[in-house]
Amino acid sequence: MSLGSGKIAIVGATGAVGAELIQLLHDEGVEPDRIVALASARSAGTSVVYGDASITVSTLDDADPSACALVFLAASSGVARAWAPRFVDGGALVVDNSSAFRMDPNVPLVVPETNADAIGDARLIANPNCSTIIMLVPATPLRRRFGCRKLIVSTYQAVSGAGAPAMEELRSQTERVLSGDEASPELFAEPCAFNVFSHDTPVDADTGLNVEEQKMIDETRKMWGDPEVDVCPTCIRVPVMRAHAESIHMTLAEPATEAEVRETLDAALGLDLLDDRTGNMFPTSLKASGRHNVLVGRVRPDPATRDGDRYLAYQMFVAGDQILKGAALNALQIARLAISRS
Amino acid sequence: MSLGSGKIAIVGATGAVGAELIQLLHDEGVEPDRIVALASARSAGTSVVYGDASITVSTLDDADPSACALVFLAASSGVARAWAPRFVDGGALVVDNSSAFRMDPNVPLVVPETNADAIGDARLIANPNCSTIIMLVPATPLRRRFGCRKLIVSTYQAVSGAGAPAMEELRSQTERVLSGDEASPELFAEPCAFNVFSHDTPVDADTGLNVEEQKMIDETRKMWGDPEVDVCPTCIRVPVMRAHAESIHMTLAEPATEAEVRETLDAALGLDLLDDRTGNMFPTSLKASGRHNVLVGRVRPDPATRDGDRYLAYQMFVAGDQILKGAALNALQIARLAISRS
Repeated sequence: MSLGSGKIAIVGATGAVGAELIQLLHDEGVEPDRIVALASARSAGTSVVYGDASITVSTLDDADPSACALVFLAASSGVARAWAPRFVDGGALVVDNSSAFRMDPNVPLVVPETNADAIGDARLIANPNCSTIIMLVPATPLRRRFGCRKLIVSTYQAVSGAGAPAMEELRSQTERVLSGDEASPELFAEPCAFNVFSHDTPVDADTGLNVEEQKMIDETRKMWGDPEVDVCPTCIRVPVMRAHAESIHMTLAEPATEAEVRETLDAALGLDLLDDRTGNMFPTSLKASGRHNVLVGRVRPDPATRDGDRYLAYQMFVAGDQILKGAALNALQIARLAISRS
Repeated sequence: MSLGSGKIAIVGATGAVGAELIQLLHDEGVEPDRIVALASARSAGTSVVYGDASITVSTLDDADPSACALVFLAASSGVARAWAPRFVDGGALVVDNSSAFRMDPNVPLVVPETNADAIGDARLIANPNCSTIIMLVPATPLRRRFGCRKLIVSTYQAVSGAGAPAMEELRSQTERVLSGDEASPELFAEPCAFNVFSHDTPVDADTGLNVEEQKMIDETRKMWGDPEVDVCPTCIRVPVMRAHAESIHMTLAEPATEAEVRETLDAALGLDLLDDRTGNMFPTSLKASGRHNVLVGRVRPDPATRDGDRYLAYQMFVAGDQILKGAALNALQIARLAISRS
């Protein structure tokens, strides 16, 4: 599936997601003269590596919104709100990685394995939250076959979700702690080295949910077109660089045998079943790092939900690369689908 | 509450739990001449620090089982099976930290905040699995007031549960990875630096549960005297030194208001409620490290279980020191209780 012709702009080219997008475009064989690397004024004039070539980074303010065929926004919600309409008006297909348009009823929110058809003829498409994407890759095929009543999920989230500076904070802070120095957190309020802490997004005083958890609820309901489904997330950060893991307890609408569940996961797109009980080989954050597919394992029924040889609820443990399937790769897959349908 | 008189033996004095027990005994003001430090032949002749004093480590084979008033076994199940009966026969009160006797119907399994009365006049008492202890400190007071039907728990377990060498592996492996070298795991099958992986105990081929998870189920049922309660654990290791965190979804038997749940946790023994939504201040692994009490926060109802102004299920996030409340401190608290009642 090709990426058409014309210029491809990456807004936020020097960030963790932007850099990964540029790498993916290079891996796809996109010619360097099609790539427009854009970033804030701070990064303007620097360059990004593109195979053997080097691409100079320009500021967004210098960009010509009518010169791009495809735009990936890997920047803040504020930048997305200001620039997405301009690029669309200029004729570009825009995929936005921020949360700016995710809940806009006029903007499709898409995980290709989950709701590719939602793309329609949209010219602006939102890329979901990373934790939501990684949960839905295994949950959607099970829902398609058996329905879904409830998801209780606890995340083990990498620091990369907070960007490249957060990855550098984990690295440098870990070095300091190992040398016996203070952790001295900067970007996160809590130390991230050798620590586990509740997600750093603001917590709603009434519901007790943080913004990350609310996204998992709202985005799942939107993509599944099911405003009733119960999603109970607990979002937690762990000292991991770039892959999110998730422990999921899923209650189906109809009971299923363990073989049926396993067979459904095994056949699912974008998903690799890694579930070796004898060898104790299951998904891990490191195995998921740099990998395009999401890993799923520790698949087992909840014994209390037994109904003959079927069970109503299953547990599983999932891991996916936050920068790839959680962001850059999913955005690229959205773009490919939209271009192939236009 | 005193520790009586007579010699106090620590079997496994050079391990992570043994060393913590010795520190706790010192902090309680127990005189050094009451301490008998025992370990395997490999450690015999070394010494352990005891405040200003130094205590020479002897081998277990040289121990006189009739010379001790109190024995803490912080060694393997094999050592516990061989030596617990000898020490009991010699007249000692024995608290065993291994899993050897936990499910023995004749041996009480005790978390003082949960089932102190189970101690009775037993001379051998088993200390539960660390993850079970840390879950039951918040879950038991809620169960006492509202009952409990189900616990769905995902753990974030420190490497300390695998002993002092595992802590050294996390430290040295992290240093290697930061220098760009291979992780080269030794003790764990998976790299532990910057990684999250399924607990390293064997996985049952039929149930899909690992040994750690089965312990959480069996031990909870034994201590609560409720063979029917559903416990659905997923046990996961994280790159943290010595505190376990747990994300718990608890279904009560009767619905409760959020204020009632909060008030129950706030009044519970051995538990500190740390739940500042505005400041995003909640339990973390580091805050729990070195602390005697377990921390609980992120307390919130499961909205789908609403019943008027009450809810049937609640979520919470817990953190407790694996070596202290998860092992050494709980063992010491058991000993204090048993001595005060004898």
